Amino acid sequence: MADVITFGEAMIRLTPPGFQKIEQSDKLKINAGGAELNVAVALSRLGSSSGWVSCLPENPLGNMISNKAREHNVLTDHIVWEKEGRAGLYFYEMGASPRPSSVLYDRAHSCMSGLDHKKLNYEKILKNAKWFHTTGITPALGDGCRKAVSEFLKRAKELKLTTSYDLNFRKKLWTEETAQKVQEEMMKDIDILISTEEDIERVFKIKDPQSNYHNISKKLIDKFKFKIVCITIRENISVWKNNWSAVLFDGKDFLESDKYEVEVVDRIGAGDSFTAGLIHSLLSGKPHKEALNFAVAFSALKHSIPGDFNLATKEETENLLKNKNMRVQR
Amino acid sequence: MADVITFGEAMIRLTPPGFQKIEQSDKLKINAGGAELNVAVALSRLGSSSGWVSCLPENPLGNMISNKAREHNVLTDHIVWEKEGRAGLYFYEMGASPRPSSVLYDRAHSCMSGLDHKKLNYEKILKNAKWFHTTGITPALGDGCRKAVSEFLKRAKELKLTTSYDLNFRKKLWTEETAQKVQEEMMKDIDILISTEEDIERVFKIKDPQSNYHNISKKLIDKFKFKIVCITIRENISVWKNNWSAVLFDGKDFLESDKYEVEVVDRIGAGDSFTAGLIHSLLSGKPHKEALNFAVAFSALKHSIPGDFNLATKEETENLLKNKNMRVQR
Amino acid sequence: MADVITFGEAMIRLTPPGFQKIEQSDKLKINAGGAELNVAVALSRLGSSSGWVSCLPENPLGNMISNKAREHNVLTDHIVWEKEGRAGLYFYEMGASPRPSSVLYDRAHSCMSGLDHKKLNYEKILKNAKWFHTTGITPALGDGCRKAVSEFLKRAKELKLTTSYDLNFRKKLWTEETAQKVQEEMMKDIDILISTEEDIERVFKIKDPQSNYHNISKKLIDKFKFKIVCITIRENISVWKNNWSAVLFDGKDFLESDKYEVEVVDRIGAGDSFTAGLIHSLLSGKPHKEALNFAVAFSALKHSIPGDFNLATKEETENLLKNKNMRVQR
Amino acid sequence: MADVITFGEAMIRLTPPGFQKIEQSDKLKINAGGAELNVAVALSRLGSSSGWVSCLPENPLGNMISNKAREHNVLTDHIVWEKEGRAGLYFYEMGASPRPSSVLYDRAHSCMSGLDHKKLNYEKILKNAKWFHTTGITPALGDGCRKAVSEFLKRAKELKLTTSYDLNFRKKLWTEETAQKVQEEMMKDIDILISTEEDIERVFKIKDPQSNYHNISKKLIDKFKFKIVCITIRENISVWKNNWSAVLFDGKDFLESDKYEVEVVDRIGAGDSFTAGLIHSLLSGKPHKEALNFAVAFSALKHSIPGDFNLATKEETENLLKNKNMRVQR
Amino acid sequence: MADVITFGEAMIRLTPPGFQKIEQSDKLKINAGGAELNVAVALSRLGSSSGWVSCLPENPLGNMISNKAREHNVLTDHIVWEKEGRAGLYFYEMGASPRPSSVLYDRAHSCMSGLDHKKLNYEKILKNAKWFHTTGITPALGDGCRKAVSEFLKRAKELKLTTSYDLNFRKKLWTEETAQKVQEEMMKDIDILISTEEDIERVFKIKDPQSNYHNISKKLIDKFKFKIVCITIRENISVWKNNWSAVLFDGKDFLESDKYEVEVVDRIGAGDSFTAGLIHSLLSGKPHKEALNFAVAFSALKHSIPGDFNLATKEETENLLKNKNMRVQR
Amino acid sequence: MADVITFGEAMIRLTPPGFQKIEQSDKLKINAGGAELNVAVALSRLGSSSGWVSCLPENPLGNMISNKAREHNVLTDHIVWEKEGRAGLYFYEMGASPRPSSVLYDRAHSCMSGLDHKKLNYEKILKNAKWFHTTGITPALGDGCRKAVSEFLKRAKELKLTTSYDLNFRKKLWTEETAQKVQEEMMKDIDILISTEEDIERVFKIKDPQSNYHNISKKLIDKFKFKIVCITIRENISVWKNNWSAVLFDGKDFLESDKYEVEVVDRIGAGDSFTAGLIHSLLSGKPHKEALNFAVAFSALKHSIPGDFNLATKEETENLLKNKNMRVQR
Repeated sequence: MADVITFGEAMIRLTPPGFQKIEQSDKLKINAGGAELNVAVALSRLGSSSGWVSCLPENPLGNMISNKAREHNVLTDHIVWEKEGRAGLYFYEMGASPRPSSVLYDRAHSCMSGLDHKKLNYEKILKNAKWFHTTGITPALGDGCRKAVSEFLKRAKELKLTTSYDLNFRKKLWTEETAQKVQEEMMKDIDILISTEEDIERVFKIKDPQSNYHNISKKLIDKFKFKIVCITIRENISVWKNNWSAVLFDGKDFLESDKYEVEVVDRIGAGDSFTAGLIHSLLSGKPHKEALNFAVAFSALKHSIPGDFNLATKEETENLLKNKNMRVQR
Repeated sequence: MADVITFGEAMIRLTPPGFQKIEQSDKLKINAGGAELNVAVALSRLGSSSGWVSCLPENPLGNMISNKAREHNVLTDHIVWEKEGRAGLYFYEMGASPRPSSVLYDRAHSCMSGLDHKKLNYEKILKNAKWFHTTGITPALGDGCRKAVSEFLKRAKELKLTTSYDLNFRKKLWTEETAQKVQEEMMKDIDILISTEEDIERVFKIKDPQSNYHNISKKLIDKFKFKIVCITIRENISVWKNNWSAVLFDGKDFLESDKYEVEVVDRIGAGDSFTAGLIHSLLSGKPHKEALNFAVAFSALKHSIPGDFNLATKEETENLLKNKNMRVQR
Repeated sequence: MADVITFGEAMIRLTPPGFQKIEQSDKLKINAGGAELNVAVALSRLGSSSGWVSCLPENPLGNMISNKAREHNVLTDHIVWEKEGRAGLYFYEMGASPRPSSVLYDRAHSCMSGLDHKKLNYEKILKNAKWFHTTGITPALGDGCRKAVSEFLKRAKELKLTTSYDLNFRKKLWTEETAQKVQEEMMKDIDILISTEEDIERVFKIKDPQSNYHNISKKLIDKFKFKIVCITIRENISVWKNNWSAVLFDGKDFLESDKYEVEVVDRIGAGDSFTAGLIHSLLSGKPHKEALNFAVAFSALKHSIPGDFNLATKEETENLLKNKNMRVQR
Repeated sequence: MADVITFGEAMIRLTPPGFQKIEQSDKLKINAGGAELNVAVALSRLGSSSGWVSCLPENPLGNMISNKAREHNVLTDHIVWEKEGRAGLYFYEMGASPRPSSVLYDRAHSCMSGLDHKKLNYEKILKNAKWFHTTGITPALGDGCRKAVSEFLKRAKELKLTTSYDLNFRKKLWTEETAQKVQEEMMKDIDILISTEEDIERVFKIKDPQSNYHNISKKLIDKFKFKIVCITIRENISVWKNNWSAVLFDGKDFLESDKYEVEVVDRIGAGDSFTAGLIHSLLSGKPHKEALNFAVAFSALKHSIPGDFNLATKEETENLLKNKNMRVQR
Repeated sequence: MADVITFGEAMIRLTPPGFQKIEQSDKLKINAGGAELNVAVALSRLGSSSGWVSCLPENPLGNMISNKAREHNVLTDHIVWEKEGRAGLYFYEMGASPRPSSVLYDRAHSCMSGLDHKKLNYEKILKNAKWFHTTGITPALGDGCRKAVSEFLKRAKELKLTTSYDLNFRKKLWTEETAQKVQEEMMKDIDILISTEEDIERVFKIKDPQSNYHNISKKLIDKFKFKIVCITIRENISVWKNNWSAVLFDGKDFLESDKYEVEVVDRIGAGDSFTAGLIHSLLSGKPHKEALNFAVAFSALKHSIPGDFNLATKEETENLLKNKNMRVQR
Repeated sequence: MADVITFGEAMIRLTPPGFQKIEQSDKLKINAGGAELNVAVALSRLGSSSGWVSCLPENPLGNMISNKAREHNVLTDHIVWEKEGRAGLYFYEMGASPRPSSVLYDRAHSCMSGLDHKKLNYEKILKNAKWFHTTGITPALGDGCRKAVSEFLKRAKELKLTTSYDLNFRKKLWTEETAQKVQEEMMKDIDILISTEEDIERVFKIKDPQSNYHNISKKLIDKFKFKIVCITIRENISVWKNNWSAVLFDGKDFLESDKYEVEVVDRIGAGDSFTAGLIHSLLSGKPHKEALNFAVAFSALKHSIPGDFNLATKEETENLLKNKNMRVQR
């Protein structure tokens, strides 16, 4: 299959245009998205080969999700298709200060949340792959997903793949307690952890009184033996303007990225873009500092693009790393 | 509350514009609809006072549905609101010959399908009402709904309300066998049955070799002691052009309506419009022939209006009954 | 100024998309239109030089109307601009059988309806012109307009211009009685009358029991000494499908045009297109038969184009006259 | 009827999308709005029962306005319906610095401006109500409205309702002199005045050289014996970014609210939202400080929502009062 | 690569919505299409593996075209990418009787028309393939394309692939004379010819006075030794309503398909859908009669779907073959 | 013809809405624009009479461009129309920090780039004109255009017209070297040069180490004997927020304009608006300081208006010069 395998749910995303609230909207923009699919799409667009594994219903909504994965060159051969059942949905209301944007999930009872993990052909999926990635959303979806994540991670390590994991805590899906219990066990098979200060505290109860990211990273590596910890940092200046940066600790060097002031068209998927930029860079053999800065620049660009997917190109990212001039490109 | 009470589920309706298939659509038109709400809206717009009883989640989608009911002056005081849970959805692809229009339901696990029927205050709801209406969709949704329908019908008859019922068989919700078993028991409390030749055959196994509607109606009245049976008749000349008419049998007179050649903008809810036109006319004391023709004209107009709701006015309907000229009205 | 001068009101036109009723619409298509402007635009697009005279407020709506006239090369130098006041509006609901399309006017108190006719520089406007055209809407708008029409017609005849007039009876603006009284006086200055059977009966009480257009035309010429009478004929097969044709009587020959079955995208302005096609052809010296057929073909094409204006080209019209094949033109 | 009665005109609002000027727009977003209706809608959404009294034409535009009131649960039973006449309109061009947003009114000759005040059943309307609210727009519309405002205020005081009034000076409707003369007489029946520094100066010629809101409020209370004066304060940092706050003086305490930096999606109706937040809070028995801060938070949220109506919920407002974090709400 | 290889140009397609003419449109729907890509997409959706070979510029328009191919699972590995140059465009105006739809091409100077045919790796492209398809548009684009078509056909025959060819004469690209000369030479390598009566006459000067398709097919097979000739037959009842059918002659049996009355949403690509339906059926080993009827049903459905691509499914096609009922599918 | 003649290419402009990238867009906004047409439109809207000279194909795209010129009262009588050929196109992706907006040109092989300069009737075009304006884009388009620019400038000087020139360097059209060589020769016929610091350096290699605009202007006047040099200055605070100002040096006074912080809806055409504001002011006899400030205010307003054209009015500009308050204008 592909160099990088991601595993998780993607949903149909429905967004009222023009900052409308759902109640007043006459039409909804329709799209697809989900953390692990977003990573796979971004990887593929950057030039890494990626495949996305999930479970979808055989209906127009399921088709739309896999079409959109394929549109961006993500391999979809190992999707588990179900005759019955539903695709998860989410509704996204875009805000303006002082009204934050908000997400209304309608994902319960989706095919993926009821996944029969035995339908996954782990061996075939991971064959020849170099990297496996998933997030904390997947084990929160249901028992089948939880078992599949464990199995994927165990086999990936046996096969010497690199594994990465984004905590992505979702309070609508499970409690902090369950999230901690389930995920602490899994961390032994993870090489690279990507998360935010807030999620690290909520899930692992690890924090630092001065928000010292170096300290937080150290505690994580001390406890879970990760090879790399990345923390993305968002400052919400306002809903339409954020600062975006990240740090990387590899047990040795603590690296801080450039910081971008981003004008927010759509911030969903920015963290996933960071992950993709990081994986792509590390797979290409870039040094950690360069990988970190590429990942941050690439994910900063995501904020300017509507939808979950990061359609920014490698060339745009490299231009940004070289030159922060905001003039019209002709 | 209101003169006419209807009870059933309404869903969020999502429609790709311009005859697109869902897979290719970039946006979806958002609306609300559902058989019994459609009847209540149409009644209210015609001038009858109506109330709609249902169960909705306390979220923007639930709010949207009740907003739209209220927009058209339908009383919503007895909706059961649930803190958790989902609103049913349906996706509607509009076709063109030889591709029929099609509906994709995503209504399983909705609040209404899991209704706790004890939350309904039957006494208060039916107090001072004159008419109760529901359809065969409601008992098919789940146990709570089934019990509620029985209870409503029983109490309605005790309170001397007129009761009407549209068979509306939905094969995705239950089998013909279950539909027959469950509904045959309920028919003793029904005064007026509205249906189509096809549904009558599928549910009650009653048919006529020559499609003689008089015979079919007779058999229904013989078996179930209805006061009135109405059968709506649609001829699908093409997807964009249908003939639309109906018959009414009251045990004595067999009446045939005018027939309309309709240009189909949106045929969802046409049957519900017929029901509303009939109830409104009978409540106003119109003779059966006049009631039938009003109901057919009103529901013929529905085909020209996008969405589930019939926004045609009483005045437009009366103009149509008088004059079938299709010139621009200035 | 221009070869053909038309005089009348144009309004902002607001149309709900997708066959929606106004009550349910979320947005309205905005456009400009009005009988005499429609004629001027169509003339200019066919290659005749035309100017449109009217009265507009100095605000964005007034500007939009004159912009759109100029966009199609209509001279607007003699528009009377008012500092205060409003532009007339009309709302257009597009129907589908059995719901006819309908127009809601909001034109009362417009600048044009309160026109101070002394602000018109008749001499300059008509200088070098060859043709003057107006319709029965203009004198119905108000006293100033009525006087201006009389004055225009009188001077046009003195200056040997050809004059044409479309009865265009609007029952919301005046009664049949007033329309008859006011217009019968004006007819002495008209060379060419264009109308429909219905309007001729409503305004002049002239009709024929067998709808014999020859007889009707004769009676009109007998009474008013027109040089030419044209009657356009619309058969409303349905809202979306009409037959369209016309007859011309010049006191000698009674000519019947080809008949077109038109698929109706937007029929507003079809009559105005006929007038423009006729004027253009007669100005070009075409024989009456050819002029009639050109005018009918050109106005048949109008039905396929959204908005009041006929954007069909001369080339498209000539192709249609030669070849009625409906294959894709590549 | 309802706890709070508001009285005033609502108009159809037409807005070009995407910061377009009207002249270049192809479509207009259609909505309804008007100061007193905006207050009623916001009150109802917050949970207060409200009714709106006005005068509308019996046509699709009049229907649309009352539909939208009802959609948000505002009682509309006492609207005076006219067979003829027009609904007021306004066109709203949304700007970007240095182009301020602008409003083009087309409201002259509306039904409401020609209101026959004797058609209002004051007794029935105010029966059981607790609060009456109107603004300085209403008496500016015409004689009938002026008389109705006087009558409403007089009767409201007799019935011991609380009365509130927003100066809302509109220079297109009347002069400062007339506004002063007419309104000074009415102030004796007002308990709560809500306005801006600018309008207070224009209408009552009351100001303070240092813009000291305490002093201004004192002068107002000294002169007119209000129980409460509120002044809303907008700082136009740019068209897209404003600061928003308010002060309240109750004759004893001078209270200053929190200040919000708002990203402006649509600022029309922000003042009306403040009024609704205040009325709702005072009716709920909140202390003045809490009422002021709730009203400011609620109306700060309005800026993020397209249209005149504030669709922000009570829950969103309370969240904002607790936590100004602008992260995505999941 | 894939079982079926198609070779040709795809363009960006720009369509004014709502039957607008380009001159009046405010926005254009953007899509991709082109005869051979349309065939590949339809094949892939039916379940055949297909690959499309072409030449595209490395810019967002080139990317969009290949994205959309991949979205529908068409292999794009052998597209020749050019650093410079343009993608072909076409503008499509949708008509209504009596205005036929029309296409405005802007495809001159595209990358594909200047293709360097040596950049194609014929061997690798055709390896393991079973079928090669192209149309008469491709050799008309330029010298490089002409040579590539010859080379593809020659090698395909050597490798024992089935070859099919649709004449698709485009008068804007070459004359009938050149078309005849160039293509007559190529026909020796063609197994299956698909065309229309009109194109056969224009290119090969083969016709029948009574439009006898059997005779025409015979003459073609006599002259060019095709294994199969298919002629698609369109009757333009009106722009919005066509009859659609086809015939197949295999040298032995002359087969006539069912005929469909289609309501035309978008007829571009109907012929390509026929080709795909035929190839898919023959590859699946269906008998000729069944293949013909499947191809006609599948392509009849195309008329109901906006865009060049046929998004109808195999299941929809099979349902249509079984049951021509046009009721809503629930 | 007109007081001011501009000469250059205008293109069809296609813009994805909502900050979408082209690859993800479903529709494109369609418009027309081009430096010299933008100047002519802005001049005409300000009240100067202007004419635009160019070369266009006789097809709907060519028509659309000239329609839009005429819509804004620009004379188009001297456009050279070609039977064959294409209109230039450009695609505009609107960005958000840190993604700059970008332009994708598809203008090669346009009619204008292949202009036969002998088809221009220079004498007639310039007769009675007072001003000639073009930009550095025009000679970069092709040989014909280059010759035409030379000829226009030579004749304009002979006829004592004022000439102005905006360097507008486009690196996709020619190299800095060619641009320098070609344009240095032309500068002798130029009275007023308008440009940016960057373009002056790229084309004439003139710069100042401290970005001292006075020094740069002096060097330009020393070398080329311009009467006036204007440099527009844009500070890209972010993609959505810029500072905008300009300087003017007339050999004597070095004038610095007010500076505007602009919220960027669409910055294309801002420089052209500056030029138009300057020409209009100078033609009206305003002093240089006033002309400069008017031009900057007018072009600052352009940033708030979608499309290439500046639809801001003279009145809005004068209001802005008087009052920078950003409150809603009622």
